[in-house]
Parts: sequence; C-alpha cells; structure tokens
Amino acid sequence: MKIAFLGIGNMGAAMARNLVKGSHEVRAWNRTQARVKEVPGAIAAATPADAARGADLAFTMLADDAAVEAVVFGNDGILNALPKGAIHVSASTISVDLSRRMQKAHEGRGQQYVSAPVFGRPAAADAGQLFVVAAGADDAVKKCEPLFATFGQKTFVMGNDPVSANVVKLAGNFLIATIIESLGEAVALTRKYDVEPQAFIDFLTSSLFAAPIFKIYGGLVASQQFEPAGFKLRLGLKDIRLALAAGEAAQVPLPIADLMRANAVRAVNNGMGDLDWSALSKIAAENAGLK
Amino acid sequence: MKIAFLGIGNMGAAMARNLVKGSHEVRAWNRTQARVKEVPGAIAAATPADAARGADLAFTMLADDAAVEAVVFGNDGILNALPKGAIHVSASTISVDLSRRMQKAHEGRGQQYVSAPVFGRPAAADAGQLFVVAAGADDAVKKCEPLFATFGQKTFVMGNDPVSANVVKLAGNFLIATIIESLGEAVALTRKYDVEPQAFIDFLTSSLFAAPIFKIYGGLVASQQFEPAGFKLRLGLKDIRLALAAGEAAQVPLPIADLMRANAVRAVNNGMGDLDWSALSKIAAENAGLK
Amino acid sequence: MKIAFLGIGNMGAAMARNLVKGSHEVRAWNRTQARVKEVPGAIAAATPADAARGADLAFTMLADDAAVEAVVFGNDGILNALPKGAIHVSASTISVDLSRRMQKAHEGRGQQYVSAPVFGRPAAADAGQLFVVAAGADDAVKKCEPLFATFGQKTFVMGNDPVSANVVKLAGNFLIATIIESLGEAVALTRKYDVEPQAFIDFLTSSLFAAPIFKIYGGLVASQQFEPAGFKLRLGLKDIRLALAAGEAAQVPLPIADLMRANAVRAVNNGMGDLDWSALSKIAAENAGLK
Amino acid sequence: MKIAFLGIGNMGAAMARNLVKGSHEVRAWNRTQARVKEVPGAIAAATPADAARGADLAFTMLADDAAVEAVVFGNDGILNALPKGAIHVSASTISVDLSRRMQKAHEGRGQQYVSAPVFGRPAAADAGQLFVVAAGADDAVKKCEPLFATFGQKTFVMGNDPVSANVVKLAGNFLIATIIESLGEAVALTRKYDVEPQAFIDFLTSSLFAAPIFKIYGGLVASQQFEPAGFKLRLGLKDIRLALAAGEAAQVPLPIADLMRANAVRAVNNGMGDLDWSALSKIAAENAGLK
Repeated sequence: MKIAFLGIGNMGAAMARNLVKGSHEVRAWNRTQARVKEVPGAIAAATPADAARGADLAFTMLADDAAVEAVVFGNDGILNALPKGAIHVSASTISVDLSRRMQKAHEGRGQQYVSAPVFGRPAAADAGQLFVVAAGADDAVKKCEPLFATFGQKTFVMGNDPVSANVVKLAGNFLIATIIESLGEAVALTRKYDVEPQAFIDFLTSSLFAAPIFKIYGGLVASQQFEPAGFKLRLGLKDIRLALAAGEAAQVPLPIADLMRANAVRAVNNGMGDLDWSALSKIAAENAGLK
Repeated sequence: MKIAFLGIGNMGAAMARNLVKGSHEVRAWNRTQARVKEVPGAIAAATPADAARGADLAFTMLADDAAVEAVVFGNDGILNALPKGAIHVSASTISVDLSRRMQKAHEGRGQQYVSAPVFGRPAAADAGQLFVVAAGADDAVKKCEPLFATFGQKTFVMGNDPVSANVVKLAGNFLIATIIESLGEAVALTRKYDVEPQAFIDFLTSSLFAAPIFKIYGGLVASQQFEPAGFKLRLGLKDIRLALAAGEAAQVPLPIADLMRANAVRAVNNGMGDLDWSALSKIAAENAGLK
Repeated sequence: MKIAFLGIGNMGAAMARNLVKGSHEVRAWNRTQARVKEVPGAIAAATPADAARGADLAFTMLADDAAVEAVVFGNDGILNALPKGAIHVSASTISVDLSRRMQKAHEGRGQQYVSAPVFGRPAAADAGQLFVVAAGADDAVKKCEPLFATFGQKTFVMGNDPVSANVVKLAGNFLIATIIESLGEAVALTRKYDVEPQAFIDFLTSSLFAAPIFKIYGGLVASQQFEPAGFKLRLGLKDIRLALAAGEAAQVPLPIADLMRANAVRAVNNGMGDLDWSALSKIAAENAGLK
Repeated sequence: MKIAFLGIGNMGAAMARNLVKGSHEVRAWNRTQARVKEVPGAIAAATPADAARGADLAFTMLADDAAVEAVVFGNDGILNALPKGAIHVSASTISVDLSRRMQKAHEGRGQQYVSAPVFGRPAAADAGQLFVVAAGADDAVKKCEPLFATFGQKTFVMGNDPVSANVVKLAGNFLIATIIESLGEAVALTRKYDVEPQAFIDFLTSSLFAAPIFKIYGGLVASQQFEPAGFKLRLGLKDIRLALAAGEAAQVPLPIADLMRANAVRAVNNGMGDLDWSALSKIAAENAGLK
C-alpha cells in the first residue's frame, strides 16, 4: 500500500520502519525533516499534504493535540490532500474531542478515520511488540490490521466508534499512573516500617502483582531512578488531563485522576517535569517526610 | 512439631490440614468448636490455652484484632499457656499496634513472636499455593519455614521486626483495593464511550496488566458479579482502616486510601457491606450515573 | 451616558433598571426580547450591535461563556459595533480564557475592557446592594464607578488586569461552594450524634461564623429546602469548573474544588441539577447513610 | 459553689479567674503547680482528688485525651474523689469515645457529667466572651449555666447527651480548618493572577464573608504571619483526627477532613508543627509553586 506517515519521533520512526519492511511504500514527513532518515527506504515529503496526496492511508503519530490538529487541519494538512476513500489512522494519544472532530471532517470528505493508539515503548515498536487498540468502521479496521501486525503483537478492536479507542488509551494510561501513585504511597508506608523497598517490590512482582507494569514501575519507584525519563512527568500530566477531560465530557468523576493531577502539577511546579513520570512517587515520600 | 492452631475458618482449616499432612501434631481450637472436624487428624482443644500448653508453636488465624486479642491475652489465652521458647506465629491481618503489643508480651515471657500474614484465597491455601510474608527473629523464622512450605508456594522474609510483615500485608491489600477502585473508575469512563467492559478487561489483561490480580478483579468489575463474596466489602473496609492506622502511626498520608475508605463507608451505609469488595467499583458507576 | 446593556435576565434587568434610574440612556438587548419590558425606560435593540452602536459603554450580563462569546464576537456582536474609545464592562461569571480574549480583541479596536463581576442575588441588585469586583485600566474603571454605584453598595478594585476580577469572582464562588460542602459534612456528622441541624446552625451563626453566607446556606442545609433554586446546582458545577480551569491555566491545584466537582457531577447525574446548589450537602448525607 | 478546677493553662486560668470573681470557692490543680498562682484567690490542690473532694462541681480544661483520662481515671483522679451528686464539667476538646466513657463512669458513681467545650481564645475567656456549647442532663446543665456565664457570653445547649457537645466542638473546629484550607487554595489561585492577597481578603470580609473567623484567618493567610502560634498546627491536626474518629465511629465520611489531615501531616513532617495552624495554607502555595 501507499502509506503517508506523519510524525517521525522515536515511536513513529520504529513503526514506519516496520511498515517499510512490510513492503509498503512509505512517504514520511516530520517537522524537523532530518529525522526522516531514521526510516531507510521511506521517501521524505516536504509537507503533510505532499505525503498524503495519492496515499491509500495516512498514519499520524505526534506529540499532542496541537501537533495533530496542525497536521490534519492546517494549510498543507492531510485532510485536503488525502484521496476519497483513503484512511487516516490516528495513533497518537489525543483528546476525545479532537478525535471526534477528525472523524466528522474525514466523513465529510468521503474519507475514513480509524483511531489506533498503541501501548509500549520504542524498543517494543522496533521489535513488532506493540499492543494496538483500534476502533472505526469494520472495513477500514480490517484493511489496517495487516499494517498493525508489522509493528504490533496484537490488535484489540473496540468497536466502530473511533473515540472508543482513544478512551481506552487514556484509561490505560490512567491505570498506569495509578500504579505509580499507589506504589508511591505503599512504599512510603512500608519504608517507615523498615521494609527495604526492593524487597517489597520483589514480593509484589513475584506474587499477585506479577505483571510487566508492576515490574517496570516498581523497580523505578524502589530505586528512585527517575533519569533518563522513559516518559516525562509533564507528558504524564498531559495524559491525566486528557483522561479527566474525557471524564468531564461524559460526566464521569475520576477522583484518583483528580488526586494525581494535583500531585503532578505540584511536581512540575517544583522542578520535576522532565523526570520520568514514576517520579510522581516522590510526592508520597515527601508527604511522609522521607529523605 | 507440636502445633496449636487457633482459628479454624475457611483459611485456617486449609492451612491446618496441610500442617497435619506434613506430619505435625496439631491441636486445634475454634470459637465454634464443630469446625475443628474440618481438619481430620487434628485434636480439638477446649480453649486456646489447652491447645497451646506444651506446644512448640502456635498459629493464630483469626478474623480481626478483637479475636486475636482475646485468644492471646484473654483468660485461657495462649500467652500464659505457651511454654518458654515456643513461637507464636500470627497469620491474621491485624493492626501494627496489636502486633507490636504481642511481640513485647511474648518477649516478656521468653517466647518468640513471628508475624506471617498470607496472601491468597482458601483454594490456594488447600493447594499449598499461598504467598507467605514473614518477619521476626532469624532463628524463629527459620524454624517456621518448613511449616509455611506446607501451605505456601513461597515465603518472603521482610526482616527481623515482626511489624514489617504486617505492614506489607496491609500495603498489599491497599494495592488490591486500589486496583478495584481504579478499574471501577476506568470501566465507568470507557462504558460511557461504548466500550464493552469485558473487552476492555481482556485488552488490559492480555497486555501490560497481565497479572492474576487484574484478571480476578477485572472480571468481577466487568461482570458486576458481587455475590457470593470472596472477600466481603466490610472486611475490605476494615483492612483499608488498618492501612490508614498504620499510616497515621508513622505519619504517612495515604490519599488513595482516604478516598477508598470514604467510598467503602458509603457502600456499607447503603447496604453493600456483604457483597464482594470488588463492589467498590459500583461507587464509580453510580457517580457516573450508570445503571 | 449612552449605555448598551446585553442580557436582561433576573440580574441584568435589576442592574439595568438602576442604570435607567441613574438617568442614563439604556439600549437593552436580550435573546428573548420580551424581557426588555422589565426595564421601563430602556430602548429595545434588535441585535447586540444595534445596542452598541454609538454607545459610550456596553454591559454584558449573560449566562455563560458561550452566550458572551456570541454577543461579543458573533455576527451582530458588539465588538464591531462599539465606537473607538468605548468601554465593554463584562459583569458575567466567565472563564479567564474568554476574558483574556475579549481584552485583546477590544484593545485591537481601540476600545477598553473592564471586568466587573458582581456578588449578590437579584433582590440585592434591585436594592443597589451588590458587591462589584472590578479590574481594568485605571481611567476606564474610574468612568465605570458611578455606574456601579447605581446597583452596588461597594466596588472593590483589583488592579489593572481585567482577568484578576474574573478570578476573584471564581475564587469567591469556590469559597461559597466550600461552605456548602463543609456544612454538609459537618451537619451529617452532628446529625449522627443527635444534634438538631438548625440548633447547630444557630450556634454557628451566633458565634464565630456570624456571616451572611453561613446564615443563608446554613439555613438551606439544615432545612433541606432545595427548591425553588436560588442558584441551580448545574450552574454551581459550571462555576466550579471555571475555577478549576483558572487553576489549570496557572498551575494551581485546588483539591477541594476537585472534590466538589466530583460531588456535583454525581449530583447532576442523579437528577439534582435543577435544585439549589446547597443540595450539594445531600451528597454528604447520602454518604453517611442518612435519610 | 465549691468548685474544683483541673488544668490551669492559658484558657483554664482565665476561666478559673472568672469563677473566683463570681464568688465561687475554687480549688485548682495543675500538673506544674506554679501556674495556680495565675488564679488569685484559688486554693492550690496537691492532686486532682484533693481538689475534687467535697466539691459541688469539677471543671476539667486539659490539653488532650491522655491528660483528661489521667485526671479522671488515674490514681488520685477525680472519679473516686467527687461526692455523689457532684457534677463533672468537661470543657476540653476530647474524643467522643472518652466523653462517652466518662459519662458512664460518673453515672456508675451517682455523679453527673456535663460536656461543655468552649470556643474562643484566652483573651476572650478573660473578657467573659467565650461561646459555650453544653450538653447533659437538664438539671445538671441548668446548675452550670450561671458558672458558664462568668466566662462566656452565651451558652448553646445541644441536648441531653453529653457527646453531642463534643461533636459540635469537633465540627466547629473542622469548619475553621476548612476555612483555612479553602482560603489557602483561593489565595494561591488569585495570587497567580496578580491579585494582592490582602486586597482579596479585604473584599471577602467586607462583603459576604464578614464573619470574625474570616477576618482572623484571612489576615493570617494573607500576611503569612504564622508565628507566634495562636493555635499550633500539630494541635489542629489532633483536632482534625478527633473529627475523623467521630466520623469513623458513626460511619460518616468527611472527605475535606481527610484532605486536611493529609496536608497537616505533610506540614508537620516538614517542620511546620509549631506554627499557627493557619500555616496549613502554605501547603496550597507550595503546590502552586509560589515562593
């Protein structure tokens, strides 16, 4: 297939490389064009519109709502450039509001819109081990699945409304943040009773909490190694805010998210915004007077 | 070894049966004595003291602080009956305050005290698959380990201060409660965006959240099957309170625990105390106006 | 002065009547034009622009951001119609974001913008007893003060940045909501200990809490008379959201506001949106299992 | 009347002086006996029991539950020393649990027990301007009222159950703490929008919030003058805990109290325990990154 790929960051580059390996023709665009070289075999496009013209399908994998909005709706955006019948696959973590607006705009142009955010880090993307959460019209999702298989180990289809996939992504990140926050509280408590943090985490991850997510974040919380950041706290705050916005739009109170937003804002205000978001656990330690 | 076993409920019976199978001489006591029959091979004792006299070691596996206090410090309690040098293994989920008092009382009698709460349900106890978290003097813990192995798959030693093991148990239950609460919020959010709850849970437990605890509680939250209760909400509330009390005693704020206590009290006040504690997730659904 | 008055609701009508009494020429516009009759002596305008053309000053007193945005920026809005040098006085409770955008837009037209939200109910407006919180350029505020004096008992000037006045209004409403919420919790607690609610409120308002706000809301909370609504809970929710949005924009966590938003959303979801916002206190009573 | 007065701190001394002025015979006891000299005309007693023997009535005005418990139930406590028919008036801020236990113990001795906590600072006590909240048997309260009138400007009777008065005291302190917390949040918000704190407080206390409590604490929060402490933060934390304990015993969630306890523990852990409890407002400022 002819694929436009918008957004060659760490994640996007790995995903695009796998699409190239899968024998697709990839035209890639990135704000700082030099990064396109990280996808050997891809053709560099001067603008999103250049990438999109004549494509069967366009992926967007960008930092936030503002970036996606510019690439889709801006001058030289893909909305005007994609052919009728083409599919826009949005893989970024974005607001439900923007996702809904894109769905309607593409519909209005006779195009299709699939929401397909991914879970996993760049290394997983390279290894084809991402988890893909997809939602959209059946036929469109079906066309995408072989593409998802180039960078993902499994695709979970959440129905026909693209927004559903965005909310699952936001809910997933909310659950990860909750694990960080609750481990922060639990480690602060046990430390005060002379339990060695790593011993506590080892117990958890060898018993009922034997999930990758507890191993990754438990290790970070126990060791307090918050640099270099795998995912920056200020981006984590952005995602908590997106979850809260999704809750507001649907009248769903999310008290744990409220609590974490307050802690994350406090952390950013006090110079922790560029640490890994597992540094949220420092707040509980500070509250307890530790260190 | 000669073992006194105090408390033949669902968990205690399974643990005691495994001790009998391990060729130990078990004298068992329970408030309603009939239940001792559930441990074939055990000798029924008329009082805790009768069970404890002459024993090498006494297990307590009881419902709450009040029950443990009565069995240890009461008339006919084990404190006065256990021989010098004997070990009291407290496997119940109790307060750090009571644990500390028992430690001191046993020390004063030349006895030893090991805290060894367990994680797992009765079926796991029967199958010898519990996780045991132990703390106490090295030699005492060492003597207990073969006994723990009769009902547990693994023992995690948390140091020499018995209270450490109690706090790890409370922190573990706090983390489980947090998973219920956060799944409740996440499912309320995704339901409002037309995501089918079981599909959401399947995604979680097939990807980053592939831990037993997410499978068990995710299934309950998705299906809203809160009866029969595996662990009653009112007992869950008790454990949240114990975690908060441990936090208070050590000056550790636990804001998620505060939030869950408020929700659990509300749930009990509104007739949900005898449901499974995964019913805490109903609060988030009610807040969202679901059902 | 020639004054345009946009928004003849209960509050706007009372304010505009006082301006007429103060010998000003008032051209009034309201979405449902019939209500303009409630301001004898005012000239009905067909559109906001009609009211604004040739005016020295325009007041907006409307329900929410959307209404203000339409009246200012819409076709037939006042932005294009007001003469150079004219002043727009925004008295509505609106977001800091919209206030900032209006300030810039008026500046761009050589007009002035004063933010002047008011505290008090329609009866107070009629009696000239409102409290006015104003911010904007010194000369502009000075010109407005005699007008404010027609409907207000006192004007508090908060500096030159119009947004300051909006935030003071939002902070004031946040404090009122907090009084409702905290009285709800306190009355739930004391009721459970057999204290008669009105006796408790009488004590408070005869001693340290002898402020109008405690008398008004204490009486409502004690009597549980939530209809007719003086100020609807769904509007209170809107204002809590505006305070939170102001906090978000300036990185200020407001945990009590988070808590009240969750309670207010729950209340609206459960059919209480049209009750007086003192009905927020029912949430605490429900949590306690009362009634 | 013959009056025993137990606890000659700043408050107790002022109250006892007024009883002496009212021509009552006062036998006073204090842990550090020297302070009894601050009550000219009072007779120093060597023990609580010495003070209580032969008395018609005994006041206790002590720091906390432990002090009251010792003075009432201890060796040389008043319980054994007071004559039949005498009244114990407990004016301290104590737990409902202790109040209930004292009521029962005095009943068992044919004595009466009146709960009568007071609101106000030492200067108000000296000036006879305290507010007294009383509960107990009608005849006992009636006998006390002339005594209350020597140091109080008004007595509010809350019924026959002494515990009611304790809960009203705890609820009152909870409301004061909430005012501090909410002013802290509101001032943090408005400061970020360039509103001068004192101007904001002046507005509040000249309009809807014209209560003594807003003037006192608003001034402290605006000026950030937290020393010398009128009422120490660590004592404020104690009272928040007592309110929460009263809530727990009656199954009443108090989410604002939970939030304030967490903030107060954090404050004490970070060296603010001896500041005035209005320093709770610093937490909101720190969260916002102010200073």
